[in-house]
Amino acid sequence: MKILVCGDIDDAERARWRMCLEQAGPEFVWLTPDDPALDRTSVDAAVVANPPPGSLAGCPRLRLIQSLWAGVDRLLADTTLPEGVPVARMVDPVMTIAMGETALWAVLSLHRGYFDYQRQQRSALWLQHAQRRADEVPVLVLGHGQMGRAVAETLARRGYPVHAWRLRASGAAHAPGAAVTVVQGREGLTEAMRQALILINLLPLTAQTRGLLDARFYARLPAGASIVNLARGGHVVEADLLDALDAGHLHHAVLDVFQSEPLPSEHPFWTHPAVTVLPHAAALTDPRSAAAVAVANLRALRSGEPLQHVVERARGY
Amino acid sequence: MKILVCGDIDDAERARWRMCLEQAGPEFVWLTPDDPALDRTSVDAAVVANPPPGSLAGCPRLRLIQSLWAGVDRLLADTTLPEGVPVARMVDPVMTIAMGETALWAVLSLHRGYFDYQRQQRSALWLQHAQRRADEVPVLVLGHGQMGRAVAETLARRGYPVHAWRLRASGAAHAPGAAVTVVQGREGLTEAMRQALILINLLPLTAQTRGLLDARFYARLPAGASIVNLARGGHVVEADLLDALDAGHLHHAVLDVFQSEPLPSEHPFWTHPAVTVLPHAAALTDPRSAAAVAVANLRALRSGEPLQHVVERARGY
Repeated sequence: MKILVCGDIDDAERARWRMCLEQAGPEFVWLTPDDPALDRTSVDAAVVANPPPGSLAGCPRLRLIQSLWAGVDRLLADTTLPEGVPVARMVDPVMTIAMGETALWAVLSLHRGYFDYQRQQRSALWLQHAQRRADEVPVLVLGHGQMGRAVAETLARRGYPVHAWRLRASGAAHAPGAAVTVVQGREGLTEAMRQALILINLLPLTAQTRGLLDARFYARLPAGASIVNLARGGHVVEADLLDALDAGHLHHAVLDVFQSEPLPSEHPFWTHPAVTVLPHAAALTDPRSAAAVAVANLRALRSGEPLQHVVERARGY
Repeated sequence: MKILVCGDIDDAERARWRMCLEQAGPEFVWLTPDDPALDRTSVDAAVVANPPPGSLAGCPRLRLIQSLWAGVDRLLADTTLPEGVPVARMVDPVMTIAMGETALWAVLSLHRGYFDYQRQQRSALWLQHAQRRADEVPVLVLGHGQMGRAVAETLARRGYPVHAWRLRASGAAHAPGAAVTVVQGREGLTEAMRQALILINLLPLTAQTRGLLDARFYARLPAGASIVNLARGGHVVEADLLDALDAGHLHHAVLDVFQSEPLPSEHPFWTHPAVTVLPHAAALTDPRSAAAVAVANLRALRSGEPLQHVVERARGY
């Protein structure tokens, strides 16, 4: 089977990916767009990292588009993407763990006041704040997919009362075996928001969720709540977030993703005392483990077994 | 039984403690030094928070000095402390959990580069760093008492390879049922230090451990290692630490405790880019849970059962 590897990554990163992919799947022929041996008419599958639009045109045998990234909103926005070909997201176990680490770090930082102490350090202010127990700090996780579930369970194991909101209504109201309360629909969200001191966004970016975190949304959180955005910049109406922070309604925001990335150097988030900026580093895909996940899906394709993590293209995730 | 409550705490804090103590032990008579009803010759036990030297003089019936704080180095330094009376440390389960939270936050911050990202934010620098897995970040915990054990196990559960160094040699080389490797003696320490990327100090402050973290000590850690001091300022030779950071041998220091507290406003730690200053807030004693612990020991005293957490005064902890 011939596999086309392409994407919006630099040469060093592409070389690392290719090495990991070749190691994980030595039985496949791995090709890059600049390869003289590339014959698009014989390509069976593509392993992609947000490739430039049109990259997958002219591949009539293409039967799988495997993303190297977990988020596929940018990939699916490519209107030249061949129709009818399954698109699979990356579900990298190392990335899921990394997201749990970032969420836990953000929650610990907010719960225990470390961002406040960091601010105090700038003015050499020695002042202790009251110490709350984890069970006194309710957390709400938006999104209950691979990432949302892992984050919610990580936090529940540390003693936080955790609600998780899932977009789609479905059977069970509780995740089996975990101290996470799963809520659904607009009513469930409104109810869970009322008591959330920390809100973590891990939703997919779709037409339904774009701009969800706006002024009206922030107003429904209790005064003093903080938000952590680890999903996509498009979820957050940035001007509304700045207003809610400046008004003192929200206490702090930890932001890993932005409307425009890299975050422009003149953006007010960089210097805002109540904003922590991360450079889209909450959870990086690890080529060592992700290559094995991509190869497992290619092997499923070859042997006719069910493909994993295929997205509903119309729904957007 | 009559209990004297005294210490170096302000009026509001004393009132809160007294309320929690009275709730936890309504059968006892609780007295403070300013109480007109106080007759020192009838005091049976004292519950103390580093009281001014001499506070416990003239109490011939005194049979227990119960500290409200976990660290008793300052209490034991009081040469007027009645001899032969058992001194008990506070072992507050809420405080132990809080210490685990702070240690976990510091380790996550160092492991995932959040202090680096914080530095980058000051100059609007968008730059991702390589992401390591937890099992690639060895941690060494100095001290294997109540706090050290809890911290080591918390970190091991998150996937870090954890060594714990215990001052006193004793039987088992491994903590039962936990993925923590316990080492002993100077040789065990030297070996574990060689590979530690993060070192957490949770030792008691004694004649043996004072000034342990000096230039020679830092030089034995690998280049790029970071230290977290959650124990006592007296463990750290501050000038040597600044040298090791300035030379780039150590990457970062998270310091909760200092030679002089509050940390003087002109101290270089406040403005050092590789130092995170916390105001001795890593783990505060929670009056709600600690009062119950103190009362349990008073009840043991009354009924003649063994006292808990009694320190060896000659050893210092």
